[in-house]
Amino acid sequence: MLSTLVVPRVSETDGAGHINNTVVPIWFEAGRREIFRIFTPDLTFDRWHLALVNMNVDYLAQIYLNTTAEVRTWVEHIGNKSCRLYEELWQEEQLCAKGTVTYVYFDYKTNKSVPIPGSIKTALLHHALEQTT
Amino acid sequence: MLSTLVVPRVSETDGAGHINNTVVPIWFEAGRREIFRIFTPDLTFDRWHLALVNMNVDYLAQIYLNTTAEVRTWVEHIGNKSCRLYEELWQEEQLCAKGTVTYVYFDYKTNKSVPIPGSIKTALLHHALEQTT
Amino acid sequence: MLSTLVVPRVSETDGAGHINNTVVPIWFEAGRREIFRIFTPDLTFDRWHLALVNMNVDYLAQIYLNTTAEVRTWVEHIGNKSCRLYEELWQEEQLCAKGTVTYVYFDYKTNKSVPIPGSIKTALLHHALEQTT
Amino acid sequence: MLSTLVVPRVSETDGAGHINNTVVPIWFEAGRREIFRIFTPDLTFDRWHLALVNMNVDYLAQIYLNTTAEVRTWVEHIGNKSCRLYEELWQEEQLCAKGTVTYVYFDYKTNKSVPIPGSIKTALLHHALEQTT
Repeated sequence: MLSTLVVPRVSETDGAGHINNTVVPIWFEAGRREIFRIFTPDLTFDRWHLALVNMNVDYLAQIYLNTTAEVRTWVEHIGNKSCRLYEELWQEEQLCAKGTVTYVYFDYKTNKSVPIPGSIKTALLHHALEQTT
Repeated sequence: MLSTLVVPRVSETDGAGHINNTVVPIWFEAGRREIFRIFTPDLTFDRWHLALVNMNVDYLAQIYLNTTAEVRTWVEHIGNKSCRLYEELWQEEQLCAKGTVTYVYFDYKTNKSVPIPGSIKTALLHHALEQTT
Repeated sequence: MLSTLVVPRVSETDGAGHINNTVVPIWFEAGRREIFRIFTPDLTFDRWHLALVNMNVDYLAQIYLNTTAEVRTWVEHIGNKSCRLYEELWQEEQLCAKGTVTYVYFDYKTNKSVPIPGSIKTALLHHALEQTT
Repeated sequence: MLSTLVVPRVSETDGAGHINNTVVPIWFEAGRREIFRIFTPDLTFDRWHLALVNMNVDYLAQIYLNTTAEVRTWVEHIGNKSCRLYEELWQEEQLCAKGTVTYVYFDYKTNKSVPIPGSIKTALLHHALEQTT
């Protein structure tokens, strides 16, 4: 499991007084940073290999400006050409949002998905959901 | 069906050269503006009545900075206390993303969902998915 | 003068109930789109030539979600290797913000500023501040 | 001096491959969090007292996704009804951006600036520019 602390920003609130719902996908993406590093160690875009194909988020409780939030990230499934992550957003021992994202391993030059190399699969397994529950 | 034109912004691209995937929920929310007006005609937050409970997005094609995009928004389902919208993002006759969002009709003072008034249900029906296909 | 209409988004408000101040630079950048096209007609990043060196914004009045805003953009000064734009944000006949940005004409391969070509200077002059006041 | 570490996000890059310039005001605002707390200890918006009147940013070097950045925040000037902050953005011992923001102490009910209370002035002095250089 990867844990990423996020300090909410005033610019991320909305007029209803809480963190706007469009910010949750941004924080979840922030929580994937070390996953991205597995695919592209120096995080440079000319070697980027991931393309998002689906995102699903359940919003469970309001998120507040006042206290630090935590994004928890697991690898839920590793397929031949794709992988699915499971993500949770916590604030003060309250689960505020949870969801999944599915990425394909992508060759941006040919615009096609390609098989995930074995070494990357092995590295992803270190964050597998099974090992943490 | 509601149609909202969106001119992509440089700040919405990412290092891979396309519109970042976290921008799609922002554009979809922008496409809900007239839906929000049905619930809160003057769009003021002390009379806000909607709380998002689920968002699901399928990413189908890359989105580019160069040309105007269009968000199409339909009401897919109206329940007792909730409603679900169906949304599509088009760019140059290409369907780039599609998804659903589910909102509950919410009383922010009591923090509880409440039944959607009949007059609002009637107004939502003008954008129902059935009437446009 | 370039005029760009902007429909405020819920995600751009903050807890104080108005458009957050960090959104103004984003809208101003959106208003520069046709300026960017003068430098890079197809808006592709491998031919991008501009680097921002200074931004100054005066915030004059609160900006609201409820009504469309307008960004007005002028070329204020054209130098040898740089140009300065002057920008205004209007909402309901109220000047809400104004500012300047200075860009240098930049070669991203050598990481150096270079002289602005004459043809680009001529195109920029069509939006010069002098011609519109 | 206040120091705030910021981990750059993929969604904050743009097509040129670096952090987009509109992100710098967002990070600088994030660096003001403890300044905001001096004015509003619980960071709730019904007790918010600050209104931004000017922002000026010099962009000095490109900012990259790959490494953590640091925002440094000082109180540069305390007036009767306003205060000015000085801010720097560092990444890998490189000063990438610097700037100032001026806020007025504001009564959102009467829409007027009011004098800053003495206790707040005293607290602001702990972060004064003079004490750190």
